[in-house]
Amino acid sequence: MSEQIRDWSDVSLKELALRLDTVQREAKELKIPAVVVIEGLDGCGKGRLLNRMIVQMDARSYNIYSTHAGDRAAREYPLLWRIWNHTPAKGRMQFFDRSAYYLVLDAWAEGNLKEKELTRYWWDIARFERQLADDGVMIIKAFLVMSRKEQARRFKEMESNSSTAWRVTNKDWKRYKQYDEYLEQVKRMTAETDQTFARWHLLETEDLKSATARLYRLVIAGFEKAIEDRKAEAEEPPETKRWVSYHGPDHLAEVDLDKVMERSEYKKVLKERQAEMYRLAHEIHRHRIPVVMAYCGWDAAGKGGCIKRLLQGIDPRSFSVVPIAAPTKEELSHHYLWRFWKKMPPRGRITLFDRSWYGRVLVERVEGLCSNDEWRRAYQEINEMEAHLADFGVVLIKFWLHIDKATQLERFEARQEDPNKQWKITSEDWRNREKFDLYYESVNEMVEKTNMPDAPWSLVPSTCKEYARIRTLDIAIERIKAAVKSKFVAEL
Amino acid sequence: MSEQIRDWSDVSLKELALRLDTVQREAKELKIPAVVVIEGLDGCGKGRLLNRMIVQMDARSYNIYSTHAGDRAAREYPLLWRIWNHTPAKGRMQFFDRSAYYLVLDAWAEGNLKEKELTRYWWDIARFERQLADDGVMIIKAFLVMSRKEQARRFKEMESNSSTAWRVTNKDWKRYKQYDEYLEQVKRMTAETDQTFARWHLLETEDLKSATARLYRLVIAGFEKAIEDRKAEAEEPPETKRWVSYHGPDHLAEVDLDKVMERSEYKKVLKERQAEMYRLAHEIHRHRIPVVMAYCGWDAAGKGGCIKRLLQGIDPRSFSVVPIAAPTKEELSHHYLWRFWKKMPPRGRITLFDRSWYGRVLVERVEGLCSNDEWRRAYQEINEMEAHLADFGVVLIKFWLHIDKATQLERFEARQEDPNKQWKITSEDWRNREKFDLYYESVNEMVEKTNMPDAPWSLVPSTCKEYARIRTLDIAIERIKAAVKSKFVAEL
Repeated sequence: MSEQIRDWSDVSLKELALRLDTVQREAKELKIPAVVVIEGLDGCGKGRLLNRMIVQMDARSYNIYSTHAGDRAAREYPLLWRIWNHTPAKGRMQFFDRSAYYLVLDAWAEGNLKEKELTRYWWDIARFERQLADDGVMIIKAFLVMSRKEQARRFKEMESNSSTAWRVTNKDWKRYKQYDEYLEQVKRMTAETDQTFARWHLLETEDLKSATARLYRLVIAGFEKAIEDRKAEAEEPPETKRWVSYHGPDHLAEVDLDKVMERSEYKKVLKERQAEMYRLAHEIHRHRIPVVMAYCGWDAAGKGGCIKRLLQGIDPRSFSVVPIAAPTKEELSHHYLWRFWKKMPPRGRITLFDRSWYGRVLVERVEGLCSNDEWRRAYQEINEMEAHLADFGVVLIKFWLHIDKATQLERFEARQEDPNKQWKITSEDWRNREKFDLYYESVNEMVEKTNMPDAPWSLVPSTCKEYARIRTLDIAIERIKAAVKSKFVAEL
Repeated sequence: MSEQIRDWSDVSLKELALRLDTVQREAKELKIPAVVVIEGLDGCGKGRLLNRMIVQMDARSYNIYSTHAGDRAAREYPLLWRIWNHTPAKGRMQFFDRSAYYLVLDAWAEGNLKEKELTRYWWDIARFERQLADDGVMIIKAFLVMSRKEQARRFKEMESNSSTAWRVTNKDWKRYKQYDEYLEQVKRMTAETDQTFARWHLLETEDLKSATARLYRLVIAGFEKAIEDRKAEAEEPPETKRWVSYHGPDHLAEVDLDKVMERSEYKKVLKERQAEMYRLAHEIHRHRIPVVMAYCGWDAAGKGGCIKRLLQGIDPRSFSVVPIAAPTKEELSHHYLWRFWKKMPPRGRITLFDRSWYGRVLVERVEGLCSNDEWRRAYQEINEMEAHLADFGVVLIKFWLHIDKATQLERFEARQEDPNKQWKITSEDWRNREKFDLYYESVNEMVEKTNMPDAPWSLVPSTCKEYARIRTLDIAIERIKAAVKSKFVAEL
């Protein structure tokens, strides 16, 4: 009788399953999300271990994502994209059958990544885990190991059975030969990414039953601690959402709002720039460069007009426009950055965000839609996300379209008078306007804290719409040209 | 100056855009979804035409999906899967830059589909469109054409420009050579799939501007008609959700509820069957056979236990379990079948549905959660969906676990007494139980109307849980074995 179908009447595993069931239901009620990462050497029984776990669990309570190095569609995106896409909603449990760790190790073992490049990826993953943990996600990481001898034995056993023989590949035997160096790299990886809120646990799988029991115990303990923490938090007095003033440089004051462009010149220049963008859109596709453009700015600053002028003449198959509105219920049940990650472009495509992830440090901050703690840590979270994108080769172009309070008023009034534009102006716009000064302060702090070399802010004067349209086109052209010239796209 | 960047100051297009904007906002308020399919010969300007449309539109109001024959991930699923995945939510507009039509034509032009096989696909697509139209979706289909001479001219023009030359492939020139036969096939296709609620429009694109204006007019007229229809509907008296009795055969009465299996025999047989499933799961993967299993049955009939026994020992990477609960808000804003389509397995994988799309003709019918019209047309919709899946090679296994009213009561009471199982029983279960007779009638009608050769119902007596577990395993094994033997998987 093979391992897979051993009798399940074992009492202690059943008891563990029952205990897990109880704590997990409690965690669900408290809306605690959980991530269980199962990594391991090839052939060491990840699948069987995972099956032993879940087969006792309520199928409604978890999801499984299997990470494959050969997943071509996912390889079109930055490393963490597919992992972000599968982070759990509040109260849900997500198993990762391998994860980003495996992809990095595999790339190294295949000779596609140099050893000295590994640390950057370990840091990226560790930061990602910190972001999740800050958001209340319980994280357990297991690395399954077995001896070199046992690995060979299992491969041979599988090869001797006609229905499993095809599962043992040349790559498996290659890894077997690399056993020692691979394990050495695993040790470094686990050391570099072992964090108090996301611990690594090495599990010996020669005895699968005790490994399963151990994993059960780890997950149960993780939930118990998370439940305790959540209850303790609930007893703390509710946070006061007070305004935290910013005292840094006034970047907006440096924007020259008097910049203009004559209509006749505009028409001529626009045609030239659009012809250039048309050409560059092809180059982006050809060199497989992903481009992210974030159009931010005051209400009525002319974001839509700038986007429209950039898109005219580009093949609609090369870009998508993502308008950012208030988050849906589903989006609210995930980490704040989840909904933006989902929309990031694959290689060779352009995504234009009409408003962006900066909403957290602007509208959500000003309107008190998130806690002080949430918006204050968002600067770092955003910088980390943008750095990860830029490392992959994404060209990040961020605009703040700037107008002053008087210009905004003029435009609001003009919209209200035009029957075709009335729908564009709502009572919310007027309410936001009342808080112009708080927004002003927030924009300055945002620019100060998130203006990074690979993800610089462009503050664009937009008193004259024609000027702003050409200026945003010019900046985009310049950045994309530089990227086309360097042709840098990370392979992992 | 190239076509792409011609000046946009043309008044009539602007007026059309404004008109579209107005009708589209009205359609949005009325929650009318719209599908615009743009098909066409290679190089005839689909991209440019589409861009001319959307660049004047509010980016928040539409989505675009581009259908590529080379999309490997999508090719792992039945033809209509990717199209279903991109059907619009209520009030949304979806552009298809090519669609299923193209995939079928392309497979034929590449010699992978015989001419006589085409009709079946045209019917599948036509039925799919009827399902959408029945659900209130406005559908416009345009096929872009140009002369053979013009096609050659455009390919040559693109080839002469260094930034577009790569876009002209050998396949394009092959299609140019096939021009006459391809166009002939297009004519047949448009004739076979031209339906009152989903008309085809041939657009000449030699003059791109007038083609754009024509498409604008078609979409505007489509919205105007849909708005009118919707308003007329709203004036009709609200439907009375009366019970529509079923007078067909009593299939459930034929189930022998006395079937039992001794515990000792069960344990022995279970091990054998699980070993067999373990082997078959590998075969499924190897031969790339997709399997769909739907576990339906009375509350407390033992669905979960059957699923668990089947999954024990199978690699969790080869299956997923999809528990079906009440639809979310997002799911409600789509066609009823949308959420099930999304979960269908790719080649080589098993999806187990814990409850299924039959909810529409069971709980939704009994509880009046949908209109009479909706559940009555669901039988046909479900048969069509299942036929499309089966044609692709999906093995469809549908169980109804049957117990009588007395057995259900016993189990409800047992659950209520067990502290570990109390959560499994809710007041809803007791409410459903009160309507046992209505459900009984609905199950019989469902079996009568959806028991199809490629998607047969298995009515499994479940008074003895051990018997039901082995019986469901046996049925699954038999069906999968037959599929492994025939090795049939459609390539399109």
